[in-house]
Amino acid sequence: MRKVAIQGIGQTVISEHWDISLKDLAAKAIFAALRDASRASVDGLFVGNMLSGSLNHQENLGVLITDWANLTPAEGIKIETACSSGGSALRAGLVAVASGEMDCVLVVGVEKMTDAKLVETTSALATAADADYETAHGLSFVALNALIMQRYLYEYGWSHTDFAPFSINAHQNAEHNPYARLPAVISEDEYRQSRMIADPINLLDASPIGDGAAAVVLIPVEDSNKLLKSPKYSPISIVASAAATDAIAIHDRRDPLWLSAAELSAKKAYSQAGVQPQDIDLFELHDAFSIMSALSLEASGFASRGQAPRLGLDRDISPNGRIPISTFGGLKARGHPVGATGVYQIVELTQQLRGEAGENQIEGAIIGMAQNIGGSGATVVTHILRKE
Amino acid sequence: MRKVAIQGIGQTVISEHWDISLKDLAAKAIFAALRDASRASVDGLFVGNMLSGSLNHQENLGVLITDWANLTPAEGIKIETACSSGGSALRAGLVAVASGEMDCVLVVGVEKMTDAKLVETTSALATAADADYETAHGLSFVALNALIMQRYLYEYGWSHTDFAPFSINAHQNAEHNPYARLPAVISEDEYRQSRMIADPINLLDASPIGDGAAAVVLIPVEDSNKLLKSPKYSPISIVASAAATDAIAIHDRRDPLWLSAAELSAKKAYSQAGVQPQDIDLFELHDAFSIMSALSLEASGFASRGQAPRLGLDRDISPNGRIPISTFGGLKARGHPVGATGVYQIVELTQQLRGEAGENQIEGAIIGMAQNIGGSGATVVTHILRKE
Repeated sequence: MRKVAIQGIGQTVISEHWDISLKDLAAKAIFAALRDASRASVDGLFVGNMLSGSLNHQENLGVLITDWANLTPAEGIKIETACSSGGSALRAGLVAVASGEMDCVLVVGVEKMTDAKLVETTSALATAADADYETAHGLSFVALNALIMQRYLYEYGWSHTDFAPFSINAHQNAEHNPYARLPAVISEDEYRQSRMIADPINLLDASPIGDGAAAVVLIPVEDSNKLLKSPKYSPISIVASAAATDAIAIHDRRDPLWLSAAELSAKKAYSQAGVQPQDIDLFELHDAFSIMSALSLEASGFASRGQAPRLGLDRDISPNGRIPISTFGGLKARGHPVGATGVYQIVELTQQLRGEAGENQIEGAIIGMAQNIGGSGATVVTHILRKE
Repeated sequence: MRKVAIQGIGQTVISEHWDISLKDLAAKAIFAALRDASRASVDGLFVGNMLSGSLNHQENLGVLITDWANLTPAEGIKIETACSSGGSALRAGLVAVASGEMDCVLVVGVEKMTDAKLVETTSALATAADADYETAHGLSFVALNALIMQRYLYEYGWSHTDFAPFSINAHQNAEHNPYARLPAVISEDEYRQSRMIADPINLLDASPIGDGAAAVVLIPVEDSNKLLKSPKYSPISIVASAAATDAIAIHDRRDPLWLSAAELSAKKAYSQAGVQPQDIDLFELHDAFSIMSALSLEASGFASRGQAPRLGLDRDISPNGRIPISTFGGLKARGHPVGATGVYQIVELTQQLRGEAGENQIEGAIIGMAQNIGGSGATVVTHILRKE
């Protein structure tokens, strides 16, 4: 298999884009990524999206967006794995280029969530859970995560406030991200006093939905080497890509406090890249809820079981800490347009490894990891990127 | 890239399965395919499905079905390209095995359409068209195809009855298919007198929706050779896989009577397989409407422009004709559970090439082609299978 590089990146602001259609949003990110890669055409378009059928009365997004971006007759397909759709689309596009089936691929994640009524959006998001055994009982996604967080606090003896650093760090990092949905710094007092959503999850534990699109252009590293704009650039390559699944319903998992799919996909990724957790310079994790930050850090080997809040309290997760996370705000503050999130993570990692992260730059970043979670831990996709 | 074989096949009857859930339907086809392949586990599950978000209030099908079929921690993703979702899922699974990324893959197409009210299903199907420029004007999918057929009759001077053989042949072939939705033989009189749906398309020009699932197990041919049950078996390999896109809206196409994506994907497929149209022993085409049979035959090189109805009138499309089509009833009579259809085509081709097609057997079939169309010709996926 050929080594694959990220040659171009593009993203839109995450916001309530009531004046921009789904396909326009996608096209904005695509054109930005194509410009960045100095490419005019691609062999295939892999679209990560979860909710276009439920919320936008539009399927067939693969060709819809391929056509709108003037990329026909390139292949176009939509890939859906709930909130990890972006990561799954990247993985499929990567295999297409690595195998030689295609020479240039565009991966775009796009989601348009704010045109619908909030109750419709909440119901649509719940389609990521098992309709028969979870949603039928009225469990929304925040409720599912609240059950997990409640159990975590009980089992390991942390207080709710011990989770504040995850949220504070994310908002702090979003402040200078021009694409972020909520670039507002928050205090521990604000976290504590925030409105309860589903006990113990309050508003500042939860990531905001939004409309947004992010895109990357993938080509073989050997081609990327030839195309470098200047000698100061190094290709950013994808050195690991791994996905795994676990029971979709929490009650079916051996341990509701352990993301076994995250552990498995991270271990596979470390093995592919030939690295250990301590080699990772930054980690874009899936902080849809602050409890997910903790579980992701533990399953991926950055904290022992039940001890992830310690990383926040010790400032290990901050930009100059041991394992910086959510360096552009994460899902919590950059925003969580669900099917697009996995591609935003990759765009941000690329900015970091290129050294183009501005005030968010993690100094000396060479190896970055992204982990995208679908459902409450059912599908986990892990990628490791490296500056060559 | 490794050559890939179809090692196992499975399918359910296409019907109104009000007592079987979406995931149960998928699991039935999966277990049948795994038994047929003598496998208990896979590395990845590729689900072709279009409408689960709109009609079944369920997304995240990849892991949902992987979990339900007891195949975790294997990867599971859903792939959607409207009515060609099954073909696109096969193509993604094929690349995964051919590249060496995975050693054994399950591709399952599943759709559950009859639980919803008919108007909801019609609306959901219309999400395959462009919401802004087609559906907004009230165009349903049958209406789009009616515009194309009307124009075809006008341009080339055929009468509506000249299309009867497509429908009659499909129903005749479904008679002995135990999985068919409408295994009823029809006459030319019945075709002529059938109720008008959208002028000139009548009820017997249109394929029925339905609930159904079909699955195939893919492994490298080299492994298949080792696993043969007896010397009389030959592996059935996939020798070509190609997809292409065209403008999603008919009014944006250079020629609404020419499926350029079908032409392009068929030409690529012929080139990959090293064959010509005359080498194809049978062709499972996408007869969602009888006009689509004609356009698919022309674009794929079996008839010259505007002349496909002649193939029907001359009985060239019947089981002992020059290019047998819809050999188990096609979309028209086997049924069209949209996201599953592309996988049913592959299951049927495999039955034919194995020589296990019973009363539907095409004698001496060695090379078979399947073409799956998403939207009114926007995405076209072509596969060629060969008995080794």
